[in-house]
Amino acid sequence: MKHVPVHVSLITVIEIVAILVGALSGFVEARRKRMDIVGVFTVAFIAAFGGGTLRDILLDRRPLFWVMHQEYAILIFVLALLATPLMRTVKQIISERVIVVADAVGLGLFAVAGVAQAQAAHMPVFIASMMGVITGIFGGVLRDIVCNEVPMVFRDGKPYAICAFFGAWLYIGLQYTDISDDTALWTSAAFITILRLVTWKFELHLRSHH
Amino acid sequence: MKHVPVHVSLITVIEIVAILVGALSGFVEARRKRMDIVGVFTVAFIAAFGGGTLRDILLDRRPLFWVMHQEYAILIFVLALLATPLMRTVKQIISERVIVVADAVGLGLFAVAGVAQAQAAHMPVFIASMMGVITGIFGGVLRDIVCNEVPMVFRDGKPYAICAFFGAWLYIGLQYTDISDDTALWTSAAFITILRLVTWKFELHLRSHH
Amino acid sequence: MKHVPVHVSLITVIEIVAILVGALSGFVEARRKRMDIVGVFTVAFIAAFGGGTLRDILLDRRPLFWVMHQEYAILIFVLALLATPLMRTVKQIISERVIVVADAVGLGLFAVAGVAQAQAAHMPVFIASMMGVITGIFGGVLRDIVCNEVPMVFRDGKPYAICAFFGAWLYIGLQYTDISDDTALWTSAAFITILRLVTWKFELHLRSHH
Repeated sequence: MKHVPVHVSLITVIEIVAILVGALSGFVEARRKRMDIVGVFTVAFIAAFGGGTLRDILLDRRPLFWVMHQEYAILIFVLALLATPLMRTVKQIISERVIVVADAVGLGLFAVAGVAQAQAAHMPVFIASMMGVITGIFGGVLRDIVCNEVPMVFRDGKPYAICAFFGAWLYIGLQYTDISDDTALWTSAAFITILRLVTWKFELHLRSHH
Repeated sequence: MKHVPVHVSLITVIEIVAILVGALSGFVEARRKRMDIVGVFTVAFIAAFGGGTLRDILLDRRPLFWVMHQEYAILIFVLALLATPLMRTVKQIISERVIVVADAVGLGLFAVAGVAQAQAAHMPVFIASMMGVITGIFGGVLRDIVCNEVPMVFRDGKPYAICAFFGAWLYIGLQYTDISDDTALWTSAAFITILRLVTWKFELHLRSHH
Repeated sequence: MKHVPVHVSLITVIEIVAILVGALSGFVEARRKRMDIVGVFTVAFIAAFGGGTLRDILLDRRPLFWVMHQEYAILIFVLALLATPLMRTVKQIISERVIVVADAVGLGLFAVAGVAQAQAAHMPVFIASMMGVITGIFGGVLRDIVCNEVPMVFRDGKPYAICAFFGAWLYIGLQYTDISDDTALWTSAAFITILRLVTWKFELHLRSHH
């Protein structure tokens, strides 16, 4: 019943896209573990909001993003209800390639948003870069812990968190230039996404020669 | 040494009963994992207070329930000391049926208390219902994570969290009627408990036909 | 670029030593799980700061220790970069005995510091003793959860947390004597370390007779 504000800030758009991508990874992982609807919703929710929630708890920021925007919680709830019966179809439509690409976009957006939030809370610069990486990867880390797996991002040797880390520092570095903050945000997020996808391609190539 | 207040609020009674039931589930699970006394106490503590503690961290409520009432922490500590040598006897006395019933009572009480606390913190209504479910199930979720298991509530397909969810909405709905808040609390908690036990019976029956 | 204060408080020294010891346990465990550099850094970070961070979240203390002192986060980051290529050498230099001793020192220092912080936040006395044990052991607990293990401290039957618990109460007890707070801190920390090492020796001896 609330009026949607005409001007939606860039960071809000960033977070919405990243949340949907995160939830998708949760759906997939929860189904792989043969979880029921409760598990599917919870794991998707944790994958989507876990990184930002951990960041906000560490920064002592309240209300949490998903508390302020219950519409996103409801969205994931509805998607979880739809995802369970439609998962076979979804699996056929959404290939691994799509998931990797969407995940790379989410990583870029989450990480840069995390740095921005940490800097808004006056964190020192290295901690701000860590908060960016935490925001980017801890949704997946918490998802894997709940699914009783060693977190993928800690063991697969792929430069996932490292892309987020470099992008976080690119964003921090761009603040010392004349570039506007919006441009710096998008540039850094795109840098992380592209870096992630390039390294993903390269990694696959390397593996195919084993 | 403190004076016990003559008028103990309903929510306090609710939380005490639910805590003892939660601790019992922790004792059982920790023993199943062959944990030592430290594990038994910690897992019981997490099972008893984990859901409410997570809710309070998410809501940024302090002091935590068990910090304000250290007598409950001491109670679980003493029970853990007694539980270890007496576990064989306890196992003979307390059957699986008793644990399921006690757990269903705890679920109802925890969940409704969680909704009430979230509403007291001015959460939007869907988030309040989620906080009720979190309070009801995350003691068990955290218990299972510490015990290195995929949380039972996410994978057994039994309508456990769903009972809490429906009861949370019953409680929210009853607030729009003339029923007193106390009656609404007890009615919703009892609804969850009964719904849980009915579905438990039904589930068992379904399984026996496989 | 900041000036290092000439007078560094005892608790600060305590925490620095304990952090380095905690990080080492994280390096070892992450390598055992064949984690990559991201996992090695994160697990070391969690092992080093996890107990204190959980304590501070429970007490609602901010900023967190490692946010105020980003130099320690950077230190662990550099050590993680060095640890990965040098791990074989490190393993040869640092025997299990050294790790156990360093860990016992860390346990004593973390636990007593945790009690002091909890008392500074006006916690009741049993909760303060629990906060000491949490500070002492939850770095390792969270490390093991992230590494997808049942926490060692809950299952090996060794009096690890119990040493911290007794030392916490020794520290609390010494506050009723004429001993200075500094002396009480060091005495209790040393008591925990020695008690831990004595029980470790004894435990090993018991096992060798099986």
